[in-house]
Amino acid sequence: MFTFRKTALAAVLIGATAGAAFADSHGNPAVKARKQVMGLYAFHLGTLGAMAQGKMDYDAELATKAASNLAALTSLDQSMMWPAGTDSGSMEGTRAKADIWSNFPDVAAKGAALADASMAMKEAAGGGLESLQAAMGPLGGSCGGCHKPYREPES
Amino acid sequence: MFTFRKTALAAVLIGATAGAAFADSHGNPAVKARKQVMGLYAFHLGTLGAMAQGKMDYDAELATKAASNLAALTSLDQSMMWPAGTDSGSMEGTRAKADIWSNFPDVAAKGAALADASMAMKEAAGGGLESLQAAMGPLGGSCGGCHKPYREPES
Repeated sequence: MFTFRKTALAAVLIGATAGAAFADSHGNPAVKARKQVMGLYAFHLGTLGAMAQGKMDYDAELATKAASNLAALTSLDQSMMWPAGTDSGSMEGTRAKADIWSNFPDVAAKGAALADASMAMKEAAGGGLESLQAAMGPLGGSCGGCHKPYREPES
Repeated sequence: MFTFRKTALAAVLIGATAGAAFADSHGNPAVKARKQVMGLYAFHLGTLGAMAQGKMDYDAELATKAASNLAALTSLDQSMMWPAGTDSGSMEGTRAKADIWSNFPDVAAKGAALADASMAMKEAAGGGLESLQAAMGPLGGSCGGCHKPYREPES
C-alpha cells in the first residue's frame, strides 16, 4: 500500500533536474508516520534530557510519564513505516540511507537496543535525578547507534 | 516547561494585526507532539479503514499490527501535550477549543473511550474482515466523540 518508488529512468524520461529527480516524501504516509514517531521520541527525550542536564527541575512523576511514553513508542511495530523505495537515494525529504534495507537484521538489533534502553529509563526515571542521569547515557547511545550508520548527515 | 500563553492584552500592546495577534504553534513542542500523535492515529486508522471499506485486501497480520500500534498510541499519557494556553483562542495553528480545558473530566472520558475502542479493535482486527468491520464503527465514533465538541471546524 505505502510503497512508493521513482526510478532514475523515470527521472530521465521526464527531463527532471537533479532536485526533482526524486520523489517527494510529503505525500508518503509511511515516511510521515516514521518522522512523527521520531518526533515523539524527541519530545519525551527533551523532557528527560532537560532534567538530566539540570535545565529543568527534576520531577519524578513527569519523568516517569515521559519515560513510559517513550518506552511505549519504541515498542511500536514500525514495519509498515519503512517500505522499500523510501530511502534517501529514491526520494527527497528523508535522510534514511538505503543501507537500512540491505542490513535489516542489524537495523532491527538497533531498534531493539533503543527499546531496551527506553525500558531501562522507564524503570530508572522515577528513582531520583542520579538514577535518571545514569540511564540517559545508554539511551542517547542507542539513538546514535542507528543514526550514525543509517542516517544521512543534515544537508 | 511547555506552557505558552499570549494574552489579548499583549497583542494590543504590540499593535498586532488580527492574524499576528496569536502565538504561533510551530515553536510549541507540546502542540507539535499532540499533532504527531493524531497523525499516527490517522496512519493506522487509514490502514484499518481501507480494509474495512474494501479498498485494500484484508490482511489479518497487518490489521493486527496496525490495531496494536493504535492501541499503544491511544494509551499514551498525553497530559504534557495539552498545557494551558494552547487552545485555538490563544494561539494559531491549533484547532483545539478552549472548552477542552474547562471540561477536563469529559475530555478524559472521551480519551478513555478512544482507548477502549482501540483495544477492542486490537482484539477484533485479526479475526476476519467482518470482525474488523464491526469494530470500525465504535472506533470511528470515538474519534468523533471528541472532535465534534472540542475541535474547531477546518477553516
